[in-house]
Amino acid sequence: MPETGSAIDVAAAMRQALTESARACGVSSPNPPVGAVILDASGTVAGTGHTQPVGGPHAEVMALREAGPVARGGIAVVTLEPCNHTGRTGPCTQALIDAGVAAVVYAAADPNPEAAGGAAALRAAGIEVTGGVGADEVRAGPLRHWIFRQQHGRPFVTAKIAATLDGRIAAPDGTSRWITGPTAREHAHTQRAMIDAIVIGTGTALADDPSLTARRPDGSVYPHQPARVVLGTRDLPPQARLRDAAAPLIQVRSHDPREVLAALPDALWVLVEGGPGIIGAFLEAGLVDQVQAYLAPTVLGDGSPAVLDRSVQTLAQAHRFQRESVTELGDDLLITLARR
Amino acid sequence: MPETGSAIDVAAAMRQALTESARACGVSSPNPPVGAVILDASGTVAGTGHTQPVGGPHAEVMALREAGPVARGGIAVVTLEPCNHTGRTGPCTQALIDAGVAAVVYAAADPNPEAAGGAAALRAAGIEVTGGVGADEVRAGPLRHWIFRQQHGRPFVTAKIAATLDGRIAAPDGTSRWITGPTAREHAHTQRAMIDAIVIGTGTALADDPSLTARRPDGSVYPHQPARVVLGTRDLPPQARLRDAAAPLIQVRSHDPREVLAALPDALWVLVEGGPGIIGAFLEAGLVDQVQAYLAPTVLGDGSPAVLDRSVQTLAQAHRFQRESVTELGDDLLITLARR
Ligand SMILES: NC(=O)c1ccc[n+]([C@@H]2O[C@H](COP(=O)([O-])OP(=O)(O)OC[C@H]3O[C@@H](n4cnc5c(N)ncnc54)[C@H](OP(=O)(O)O)[C@@H]3O)[C@@H](O)[C@H]2O)c1
Ligand SMILES: NC(=O)c1ccc[n+]([C@@H]2O[C@H](COP(=O)([O-])OP(=O)(O)OC[C@H]3O[C@@H](n4cnc5c(N)ncnc54)[C@H](OP(=O)(O)O)[C@@H]3O)[C@@H](O)[C@H]2O)c1
Repeated sequence: MPETGSAIDVAAAMRQALTESARACGVSSPNPPVGAVILDASGTVAGTGHTQPVGGPHAEVMALREAGPVARGGIAVVTLEPCNHTGRTGPCTQALIDAGVAAVVYAAADPNPEAAGGAAALRAAGIEVTGGVGADEVRAGPLRHWIFRQQHGRPFVTAKIAATLDGRIAAPDGTSRWITGPTAREHAHTQRAMIDAIVIGTGTALADDPSLTARRPDGSVYPHQPARVVLGTRDLPPQARLRDAAAPLIQVRSHDPREVLAALPDALWVLVEGGPGIIGAFLEAGLVDQVQAYLAPTVLGDGSPAVLDRSVQTLAQAHRFQRESVTELGDDLLITLARR
Repeated sequence: MPETGSAIDVAAAMRQALTESARACGVSSPNPPVGAVILDASGTVAGTGHTQPVGGPHAEVMALREAGPVARGGIAVVTLEPCNHTGRTGPCTQALIDAGVAAVVYAAADPNPEAAGGAAALRAAGIEVTGGVGADEVRAGPLRHWIFRQQHGRPFVTAKIAATLDGRIAAPDGTSRWITGPTAREHAHTQRAMIDAIVIGTGTALADDPSLTARRPDGSVYPHQPARVVLGTRDLPPQARLRDAAAPLIQVRSHDPREVLAALPDALWVLVEGGPGIIGAFLEAGLVDQVQAYLAPTVLGDGSPAVLDRSVQTLAQAHRFQRESVTELGDDLLITLARR
C-alpha cells in the first residue's frame, strides 16, 4: 500500500476519467463527452462525473459536486482542457477555482477558440496545470468524434457492415438473421448506445421493419437512443416500428447523403447501417471516415453484396482505407478501417 | 552453456525437425513431408534431413547420412513415427537400428497400417522410443494435409480468395492487379511453393493468362512448383503461359470438382484460386476444407464477387466454417477458416 507522501497515481485517475467520459458519448452532443475525477489532497478519488445533456452540468462540475469540500487542495483530472467560456452553463475553470483545487491535469487541449484559454485562466488563479496526460488515448477514444466535428464541421461517419466472409449481407431469398453471432450483435448494440444517429435507406426500412434501438441482450433498451434517420423518397407505413416512441425518426426525402448530415447539426457520430446502396452513396460522396465490418466465418456465394457503388469502374477508383483494429467477437471478427 | 550431463533439449530438436519437414511440403508427395534431426550422444545436432521426392531417401536416412558415425548412441528426433515397411526405399526403422541410435523421439504416430509398427520394431531392437512430443504442432502444421489424405482418401483443399473488404476480386472493368499488397502476394507465393496443385477455371485462364508459378519477390522461381490445373471445357490457346515448361498443366474438361481431385491421386494439398464459380463449385460439392481470404483495406462496391454459388437460396444453407487464424500481412489481413 502506498504511504502518505507517496506519488499520487494521476495516470490511473485519467484512465478512470476516460471510462467515465465514455458514458457521455451520444448523451452530451453537441458538447464533448468529457470525464472528470477529483482526487483529494491525499490522492484518494473523491468524485467522478461526466458531461450531462445540453444545458446540464459539465463533467468537472459533476465531479466537484460529488467530492464536496475535500476537493480543496486536491487534483482535478479531466479528459479535456476545462472550458473557459460561459455558454449555457458557467465556465468550468471558475468552478475549479471556486472549489480550491491545487492542481488540474487534463488530456486533450480544447481546439475550440471560444472555449480555449482554460489552462491559462487556471494558471492565472494560481493552480498548477498539466496538459497532455493520456492525450492520445482520449483523442482516439471518446473525444474522437467531437474533435473531428471541430475540425471538419460535420459528424464523424462510420459505415457498418455485418456480412459473410465473402461480403454478402443477405441470402438470395432475403434472409439475413442472423449472419453474425450474439457477441457481435451485442457489441453493435453497445455502440448504438453511444452514437447520435443511425442511418438506413427506405429499402431496408421497408424490407426489415427494424426498430434500430440500442438494446441489451435481455431486450431492455439503453437509456440513450440514437436518432433514427431514413434516407429515400418512399413513405414509411404508419405502423412502422421506426415511428414508435423509443427514439426520434427523421426521414430525409432525398438520395443525397450530405442532406443527412445537414439534418443532424448537433451530431458528433453517425452510423450508416445500410443497405448496400446507402453505404455506396456515402462512400461515393467521400463521407465515410471509418468502416466497421463484422465478418462471420461463413461463405454464401450469392445474395445481396454489402456495398453497392455504381460509380466505381476500375480498381484505381477503389475506396482506400487503413486498418485500425481487428477484434474477435465470438465466432465473428470485427475489422475496423479508417480514412487514410 | 549447458555442461556435459545436463538435460538434452529434445523439444528444441523437434522444433528444428518441424522446420526441416516444411521443406518437404509439396516435394515429398504422396509420401508425408517429414523432418528429422540426429543428436549425438552429448545432445549436439549432428545431422538434419527431410523426405526427398518419391523414390529418394526418407528424412531419417538423410539426417543419419549427415550425422555419420556419431549417430551411434545418439537420439533421432523425427516428426512422424519412423516407417516399418519396405516400399520404394527400405524401412527407416532398419536404418535407425543399423546406425545404433540409443533413442528415438517422434511427434505423430503413423496412422497408415502398412507403415505403422515402427515404434514397436525399434523397441524390439532395444531402442528407447518416445512418441507424441510436439504432436499437436506437427499435426496442425506440415503433416496436416498428409494426415487428412490418410483419413479421407483425397487431398486437403484450400480455397484462396484475394479480395477487398466487401468481397470483390475485380473491378467492373476487370482490373484486379493488385487488390492486395506485396506482403500478401509474397505470402501466397511462399504457400504455392508448398502445395501439390493449384486449380483455376478456364474463365480465369483465358481472362488473365496467368503463369501460376511460385515466385520470389525478385521474380525467380522456387525449386518446387505446383501442378497447374484448369477446370472447364474451353480450349486454352497454344501460347498460354500455363503451357510453358515451368510446371505441369492438367486440363480437366468438366464442371465437376471431384474430377479435379481424381486427376491428382498423389496430391496432399490442393489450392483452388478461383474464379468465383470454381470456388462456388468446390463449396457446393463439400470439398473445401479451409478458406484463406486475403482482405485488403479497400471497398469497391462493384465488380466480381469472390464466390458464386447459385445453389444457395437461404441463409441456413450458408457454408459454415470456424476461424483458424488472423494474420496481418502489411496493409492486408489473412483470415483463415477451417471446416467445423
Ligand atoms: N446485414 C446488414 O448489415 C444489413 C444492413 C442493412 C440492410 N441489409 C439488407 O439490405 C436489404 C435492403 O437493401 P436495399 O438496397 O433495398 O436497401 P437500402 O439501401 O436500405 O435502400 C435503398 C433505397 O434507398 C433510397 N436511397 C436514398 N439514397 C440513395 C442513394 N444515394 N442510392 C441508392 N438508393 C438511395 C432509395 O429509395 P427511394 O426509392 O425510397 O428513394 C433506394 O431504393 C435488406 O434485405 C436488408 O436486410 C442488411
Ligand atoms: N482476386 C482473385 O483472387 C482472383 C482469383 C481468380 C480469378 N479472379 C478473376 O476472376 C475473373 C474470372 O472469373 P470467371 O468466373 O470468368 O472465371 P472462372 O471461375 O475461372 O471460370 C469460369 C469457367 O470455369 C468453367 N467451369 C468449370 N466448372 C465449373 C463450375 N462447376 N461452375 C462454373 N464454371 C465452371 C466454365 O468454363 P467452360 O465454359 O470452359 O466449361 C466457366 O465458364 C477474372 O477477372 C480474374 O481476374 C480473381
